[in-house]
Amino acid sequence: MKVSMHAMSVEVFTHALGNLSWILEKGAQSAAQRKIDPSVLLAARLAPDMLPLTRQVQIAGDIAKNAVARLAGQEPPRFEDNETSIEQLRARLARTQDFLRSVPASALEGSETRDIKVPGRERTLEFKGLEFLQRFAIPNVFFHVTTAYDILRHNGVELGKRDFLGGAR
Amino acid sequence: MKVSMHAMSVEVFTHALGNLSWILEKGAQSAAQRKIDPSVLLAARLAPDMLPLTRQVQIAGDIAKNAVARLAGQEPPRFEDNETSIEQLRARLARTQDFLRSVPASALEGSETRDIKVPGRERTLEFKGLEFLQRFAIPNVFFHVTTAYDILRHNGVELGKRDFLGGAR
Repeated sequence: MKVSMHAMSVEVFTHALGNLSWILEKGAQSAAQRKIDPSVLLAARLAPDMLPLTRQVQIAGDIAKNAVARLAGQEPPRFEDNETSIEQLRARLARTQDFLRSVPASALEGSETRDIKVPGRERTLEFKGLEFLQRFAIPNVFFHVTTAYDILRHNGVELGKRDFLGGAR
Repeated sequence: MKVSMHAMSVEVFTHALGNLSWILEKGAQSAAQRKIDPSVLLAARLAPDMLPLTRQVQIAGDIAKNAVARLAGQEPPRFEDNETSIEQLRARLARTQDFLRSVPASALEGSETRDIKVPGRERTLEFKGLEFLQRFAIPNVFFHVTTAYDILRHNGVELGKRDFLGGAR
């Protein structure tokens, strides 16, 4: 027995986005307790030329959604980037998880050898499906989930590794 | 055809740690150009109760090394935590990659159903091998690689997503 592309994409991303949603919930609780406007956290960045929390969350979900759609040969649903609250961002993550769960393992059968193209600003990246998952989709989703966590930690939200890994609930 | 546990652990981690080594090299170059003692970067943290850059790098490698050893049913090599320079940290990452590459795909055959125990301070986590990879090893390695990147970005090192994903070289 080997592992499926579905296990390493849909299952991994659904879990990671659930943890991100929980991390945001802890951010909302912390803001309420400390009497901080949550929009301050949503606009926070680790460097002036890094993206703020809102964009980190939107992008984490979009990379997961678009990656699974690409691997399945589907057109991914498009979400407008119009969230202005933690609650709205969490709803977007839930919609993203719903999409991920809607893609059955059978739709990803054989996707490890599928040609995947990722158009970018400077150039188009080209991968086989397996390499796309190993070197692009998985690292990228965790980059944005971790950076969202790091932004909240940097802003005094009490979070620990268990919140990130999902063992806390 | 499905994908192997080896592809999703040894290959993913070897690539990620190579990118981390490159990110550290860019940190060293930035420190030299800006006349900053590199030890300032190595001691930098995103929050007073988060770990500094040196520990983020050591832990990223150790989680990868220990995860692959556990999946293979091997005793992992132990490295002393005694690095005091970026060069030494990069050498440690190279030794970690050497270990990862020494584990053949055959040693991980069937590891998706292996019982894995991770002793922790508060409790021992128990997983089957696949779930261990999906929910512990992969998220955790990328957590520490990303946080190392975020610490350097927060401290003014010019890095971009291509450095993190490994497309820059």
